[in-house]
This record gives sequence, C-alpha cells and structure tokens, in this order.
Amino acid sequence: MSVLIVGSTALDSIKTPNAEKPRLLGGSASHAAVAASYFAPVKLVGVVGDDFPAKYVKLYRKHRIDLAGLQIQPGKTFHWAGEYEVNMNNRKTLLTELGVFERFTPHLPDTYKQSPFALLANIAPALQHHVLDQMIRPKFIVADTMDLWLNIALDDLLRLLSRLDGFVLNDSEAHQLTQEDNLFAAMKKIHRMGPKYVIIKKGSHGSVLSGPKGHFLCPAYPLPKVLDPTGAGDSFVGGLMGYLSTARGGIDANIRRAMIYGSVVASFCCEGFGLNRTIRVKRADIEKRVEEMTQLTRF
Amino acid sequence: MSVLIVGSTALDSIKTPNAEKPRLLGGSASHAAVAASYFAPVKLVGVVGDDFPAKYVKLYRKHRIDLAGLQIQPGKTFHWAGEYEVNMNNRKTLLTELGVFERFTPHLPDTYKQSPFALLANIAPALQHHVLDQMIRPKFIVADTMDLWLNIALDDLLRLLSRLDGFVLNDSEAHQLTQEDNLFAAMKKIHRMGPKYVIIKKGSHGSVLSGPKGHFLCPAYPLPKVLDPTGAGDSFVGGLMGYLSTARGGIDANIRRAMIYGSVVASFCCEGFGLNRTIRVKRADIEKRVEEMTQLTRF
Repeated sequence: MSVLIVGSTALDSIKTPNAEKPRLLGGSASHAAVAASYFAPVKLVGVVGDDFPAKYVKLYRKHRIDLAGLQIQPGKTFHWAGEYEVNMNNRKTLLTELGVFERFTPHLPDTYKQSPFALLANIAPALQHHVLDQMIRPKFIVADTMDLWLNIALDDLLRLLSRLDGFVLNDSEAHQLTQEDNLFAAMKKIHRMGPKYVIIKKGSHGSVLSGPKGHFLCPAYPLPKVLDPTGAGDSFVGGLMGYLSTARGGIDANIRRAMIYGSVVASFCCEGFGLNRTIRVKRADIEKRVEEMTQLTRF
Repeated sequence: MSVLIVGSTALDSIKTPNAEKPRLLGGSASHAAVAASYFAPVKLVGVVGDDFPAKYVKLYRKHRIDLAGLQIQPGKTFHWAGEYEVNMNNRKTLLTELGVFERFTPHLPDTYKQSPFALLANIAPALQHHVLDQMIRPKFIVADTMDLWLNIALDDLLRLLSRLDGFVLNDSEAHQLTQEDNLFAAMKKIHRMGPKYVIIKKGSHGSVLSGPKGHFLCPAYPLPKVLDPTGAGDSFVGGLMGYLSTARGGIDANIRRAMIYGSVVASFCCEGFGLNRTIRVKRADIEKRVEEMTQLTRF
C-alpha cells in the first residue's frame, strides 16, 4: 500500500568540523520519502520554489516518488543552514529562509486522498491538520514534530495528537511536552493525549515504542563514524512507515520490525551528507543490516 | 565458581529532590558483591572502620558473602555524600571522607587467591594491581574504574588494562580515555590497550559490549521511576560477573546474557536508596525481568 508523506522540502547547507556542503536536498519530507521509497510507493506533499534544482526532482523520480502533490511556486525554496559541533550531537542553526514555505497550504490531489498510510512529517501542526482534513479514512496516521511547534503552536499540536494513531518525537521534546524526565512516564502521559503508539527517538541511543503490546527497545545501528546526522529522525520514521505499509498482518505484528528497518535506513542517512548516502542504498544493504541487528541484540 | 570482588566499602549519604538518606551501606564493592551474590559465592576484599554498623556486616552475611578479606581498621569508614538533581542524571559530591580507606592495602586470604573470577570494582588502579599480584591463575579478570583515576592515576590504569580480560567504564570515561566521541571507535582503541572484552555503560541507555564475537547492544530495563541510581553501575558489573562465574560454557557463550542479568540487578538497585531494594530481591524477581527483557527486545 502507498504512503502519503507531507513535510518540508528544503535545501540544506550543512557545516561539520570537517566539511561544508551547500544546498543539499533536505527537509523532513525529502528524507522520509526517500527512506520510505525502499519499501512502498510514496506520494509526496510539499512545496518548492522555482529555484529548486532539476536534479533534485530527478532524484525524487528515480525513487518513484509521486510528485503530483509537490507544488512549485514562484519564489525561493525553503533554505536551512546549520553547523554541527565535533561530537555531532549539538547543532546550531545559522540561517532559516522560509521562502515559498511561508505561505504553503498543502493540497491533496484526488489520487492521494485515499492513501491508507499517512506520515505527517515535521511541519507546522496546522498544516498537518489540513492534510488530515482532506484524507478519506486513512488506516494509520503517524506524525512527527519538533521543539519549535511545542513553543509556538502547542494548542494545534495537542489537538493533532487526538487525531493520530502514532506520534514520534525525540527525548527532549517528550520532556518539554510532559514535564517528565523519565521517558516511560512521559510516554504514559502522551498516550493520554491520544496516540495509541508513542515512539521516542534518542539519537544514537535508539528509540523506544510504547504501544498496545507493551514497550519495544529499538537500538540504533552502531556506526563507527557519523558524517552528518541531519534527517536521520525523518529517515527513521519514513523507513518505519514504508515498511509498515507493505508488511502483511496488522500494525502490532509489524511495528517493531518496522522500527528496526527505520533505524537501519537512518544509519545510512548518517553516513553521508544530506541524502548522499541514503540514495545509493540497495534493498539488499538494508536487509544485511537488519540481519546484523538481530545478531547485535540476541542473548 | 566463586567471584572475588575488591572495591570500596563505604557509607553513603544520599540526597535527592525528594529525600535524604544518611549513612547507607554503599561503595563499589558492596553493590557489586550483593548483586553477584544472587548467582555465585562472593569473596569480598575491602576495609571499614570501627564505626561500621554491625547491621551492615549482618547484611553481607545474609548474602553469604565471604568476609575473610574485609579488614576492620581503627578509624572511620569511608563516607561519601552526594546530591542528585531532578533528572537523576547529574549528581554532585557534597563530601568525601576517606577515613581508613586512605591507607588501605588489600590483603588476600589464602582461600581467596585461587578465585577463578575476579572483579576489580572501582578503586585506585594501584590497589587493583595489588590484588592481581596476589592471585594465582585467575580465569577471568574484569575491572571497572571512574573518572578520578583517569585524572590522577592514568599510568597505573593503562598498565592495568594490559592485565585484564574485560574492562568496564562509562561513556564519558571512554571519551576521556580515548578522545573519541564515537563509542564504537572508542572501544576499538581500548581493545588495543589490552582488554579482549570492553563494555561501555550508558546509564539509562543501557550498555554496549565489544568482544571476540562482535558487538552486543544491551538495553537498560525500563523503569518508570528511579529513586536513587547510586551503585547501579557496580550492581551491573557485579551481577554480570556473578552470572558469568556460574554459567556453563565459555565466556563468549554467556557474556551477553550476563550483561542482561547485570542490567536487571542494576534496575532493582535504582528502585531503592542505596542497597535497600537490591537486598529484598528474590532470584525469581530477577528471572522475571530477564524474561521481560526478551520480550522488550524481540522483533
């Protein structure tokens, strides 16, 4: 089954202690869509400016991503620039030019409206609502978010939570949302806000699921070197939704394995700048790391 | 088979945002010994002052810990006081009174010298050396450490590493020792310093093994509430060594499961102040959480 993915489609300029890469393809929807494309047909919803490089459209197409929902508007593509510190955990934003993203209203083509799986990747909660409003009986809806929306659009976000099946956020966001330091206590509170499935991302420490079948402790695939973690969280949730949408059986039977697949795609993401490494992955590379994950966790 | 455990035997005064508990039984050897006692006979090496409460000697004995190597010296027992912040991750030391610990020289009774398993719990590396010097063909030697020894006794510690089978340290210590931010890169460097087995502890994020059979990603048992994490790392390595010393088959066949057992004992440690919860555990409670760990990681 296909996955609808809405989120940001951007150009990322990334600086690390060893390199500087300008205007890479980035944004939550780009990372999530490419990740999901290894498992399922993807329908992308987003906006770019008329400066958006043709090579990036080609790249989406190479991954058989449906672009009927990608608007090309007069003006500049959303441009983000950031710099990582040596340990690759702390980053600071150097520049945010919203461009055409500022007035973005996602419109769903008719062919998108019945997508059974919807991933509302990181984007303003009001836009996530607007996508849901246009959908017809989606089977499984998952949203991601970021600290910015907790700060400036908390009411929208809380209202969104009651419309979701699954909610994905990172540990510091979970703390901010619930005022709980303990992740397991935080997840309990988030369930009460709506979502049946809560996943907290912990970067290189992996992720944790709380769902109807209890908790699942999902490790991150061990990497001896991280080149650029930008988009790893989006790749995780994209891979997860892509896998889930094509797996036989229900959500509960597959969500753990889906997290492992997401984690593996995220590991590839970290091994290159932007999407450079992710786009060179073969399905067999993914399967190999998933098999390794079994070895890494067996006792 | 029995486990020899050397380390600190102390009184801990612990303050958290919700409570204050003076003069609890603490120290690396106390936590490790009680943890190991659930699996194997333990031979303790340490020193206490003549102020050491009789109830704590009784507590050791209740756990059938051999106290032939516990010296009682005139003077005060090592006393440490610390305070935890709300999130239970950051702590500050309020007081360190070394007392009789300052001039401690560990002497091994003859009945200890052939212990096949030795855990050199956190204590000055020179004392860890001194214990090893007295041992006769130990089968498996593991040491733990702390940042203090990296700061003031690095040469002793580096010399110790070449004498160990296994080395256990936490993530910030691994960074300090190797200057590597990446744990997997750090473990590779630590192998070159001697130990065949390197385990990095990551607190509530679990631990990672690097050994001859590759990596093992060991989760922490999920706790919705942590009362006092003091001694959790010592409980982990104590439980690990206790389990290993009685498991059938070689180290490689058992070390992963041993880490899971260590992790489970550490989880009980965190649920009470000092050793209050650990000492009330039954073997069946441990087995139940180990079984849960299987459920929590299966995919």
